[in-house]
Amino acid sequence: MPKLPSRIDIIEEGPREGFQIEKGPISTARKIELIDALSQTGLATIQIVSFVNPKRVPGMADAEAVVAGMTPHPKVSYRGLWLNQAGFERARATGRLDLRGAYNVAPSETFLKKNQNRSIAEQTADNAVIIERFKELGVPVEKGGIMAAFGCNYEGDIAPARIVSLVGGLLEQAKAHEVKLEYIMLADTMGWATPASVKRVVGAVSDKYPDVGLSLHLHDTRGLGIANAYAGLEMAVTHYDAAVAGLGGCPFAGNAGAAGNVCTEDLVFMCDEMGIETGVDLQKLIDCAVLAEDIVGHPLPGSVKTGGSLARLRAARAKAAQA
Amino acid sequence: MPKLPSRIDIIEEGPREGFQIEKGPISTARKIELIDALSQTGLATIQIVSFVNPKRVPGMADAEAVVAGMTPHPKVSYRGLWLNQAGFERARATGRLDLRGAYNVAPSETFLKKNQNRSIAEQTADNAVIIERFKELGVPVEKGGIMAAFGCNYEGDIAPARIVSLVGGLLEQAKAHEVKLEYIMLADTMGWATPASVKRVVGAVSDKYPDVGLSLHLHDTRGLGIANAYAGLEMAVTHYDAAVAGLGGCPFAGNAGAAGNVCTEDLVFMCDEMGIETGVDLQKLIDCAVLAEDIVGHPLPGSVKTGGSLARLRAARAKAAQA
Repeated sequence: MPKLPSRIDIIEEGPREGFQIEKGPISTARKIELIDALSQTGLATIQIVSFVNPKRVPGMADAEAVVAGMTPHPKVSYRGLWLNQAGFERARATGRLDLRGAYNVAPSETFLKKNQNRSIAEQTADNAVIIERFKELGVPVEKGGIMAAFGCNYEGDIAPARIVSLVGGLLEQAKAHEVKLEYIMLADTMGWATPASVKRVVGAVSDKYPDVGLSLHLHDTRGLGIANAYAGLEMAVTHYDAAVAGLGGCPFAGNAGAAGNVCTEDLVFMCDEMGIETGVDLQKLIDCAVLAEDIVGHPLPGSVKTGGSLARLRAARAKAAQA
Repeated sequence: MPKLPSRIDIIEEGPREGFQIEKGPISTARKIELIDALSQTGLATIQIVSFVNPKRVPGMADAEAVVAGMTPHPKVSYRGLWLNQAGFERARATGRLDLRGAYNVAPSETFLKKNQNRSIAEQTADNAVIIERFKELGVPVEKGGIMAAFGCNYEGDIAPARIVSLVGGLLEQAKAHEVKLEYIMLADTMGWATPASVKRVVGAVSDKYPDVGLSLHLHDTRGLGIANAYAGLEMAVTHYDAAVAGLGGCPFAGNAGAAGNVCTEDLVFMCDEMGIETGVDLQKLIDCAVLAEDIVGHPLPGSVKTGGSLARLRAARAKAAQA
């Protein structure tokens, strides 16, 4: 039996992933309602908004109002996402977010070109500027990310050695700029990962860089999200991005690109049942998933919100036995 | 890295699982349409109907008509399900089904009492009669099954040693009656399994009975169906029950008991991508999943039918590269 980690950290991305993609409109008040409910579950890190062009992402036009309106829980680190300097300045101006720097690379020239209109070399050069800017502002640079680390709609399959090489590049860049990354994120941006490829890629990276922390950002495009997370657990990966109720994805959208992250409460349920600590109260999180479904007004992918926890069944049995 | 099996056998149970539970009404012709389409996918075994009391399961009242109307593929073994002598005689009378005997036990007195109004001792005695009857009729006794092998809503968690003991009982009974079981089925009847418990239970059984073939019947009640199947693959389990599109379950039914089996095309996709042979044409199976959704008239749980296969993306890339 492989040794599973005793504890993992979950980065909840549901509000950002979900409200960004939903056709809506969803009122600012309801967004805040979900964020405030998530704040009570024990989740330590919640990404609540993105600061992007409101013309391109109208669902995030109220990002500042959402941040201003939520009630911060003292133990929660609230995060925002930005894609450029203007977005970062908006996040900073709120004064209520835990700002953390990150920089990304991808193994695919075509993907980068389509997604960010840059070559890999250009992105690496840009990252140097980004890191220096974070340092000037005293923003800790937390992670280096690799997009499409398990396969790419444009480039196809990616050799694990290529990812090891990109991890090496991220680490060298961090060293050159004297920042200490907390971890490297491997993102299955387009839903190509399988449990076997998660093990291959994570194994190859860990063999070369055994002391580097890893995070998995897994999309459930083809139904393997939770199996891929399990493979990550078997490889001792301790950081996972996830989205309550599977927000951000609708399995019935007809658009493969719309599939969301692995569902937080399903991941917490799996961890609870396997003795892995998450710090999250599953029942409170299930209530949040039900709330999320009510807010978006259509079914969301998560299963445990329908199937229910086993802790509840065990408690009911124990109570019946006492009676 | 664990060694995965090079090939698995899938028993498709979608038509039986699905049409049994759907509120319907679904016409006999449309049931036949799905069965005939599934017959063209390479699936070697398809359970197409159950012979149960039409008053209790109206969706299966046309079982004989379905069997009579389908077009048998010479390479497919068509199966029926029955729960008693009367049901078995109905299956036999069709003359078109591949009759295989099975007998089941469960670790839970309460579950057996509620489900079949029998004690474990009574069921074991009944099984002796059932096995002898199959022998008289020349029906091969294919499998011994253990219901609720990973946990039970009534009895809670089940110690792996209890399952090992039940497997021993099934094997002894087979030996006593001189029948050779092809495999033992471990069923997660109520969706309690996790990848860790699949490994624990399968590991315990395989340690004691290394030569016994195993099958997994996994319900996706709490979203771990495919992760549990992956854990089974890592433990070298080679038989899996599955249902096209996840038929039999609706994640939005509000009824936890309604969650179906692990989805066949998602399982085939995972196997394809990990180099495990299933004999199934994934694209044809995806077409069947889309057809199943059309027939039942509401969304079904499977993901690959929406996300699409990677083989298609790879083929499109190869074609573009040639152009």
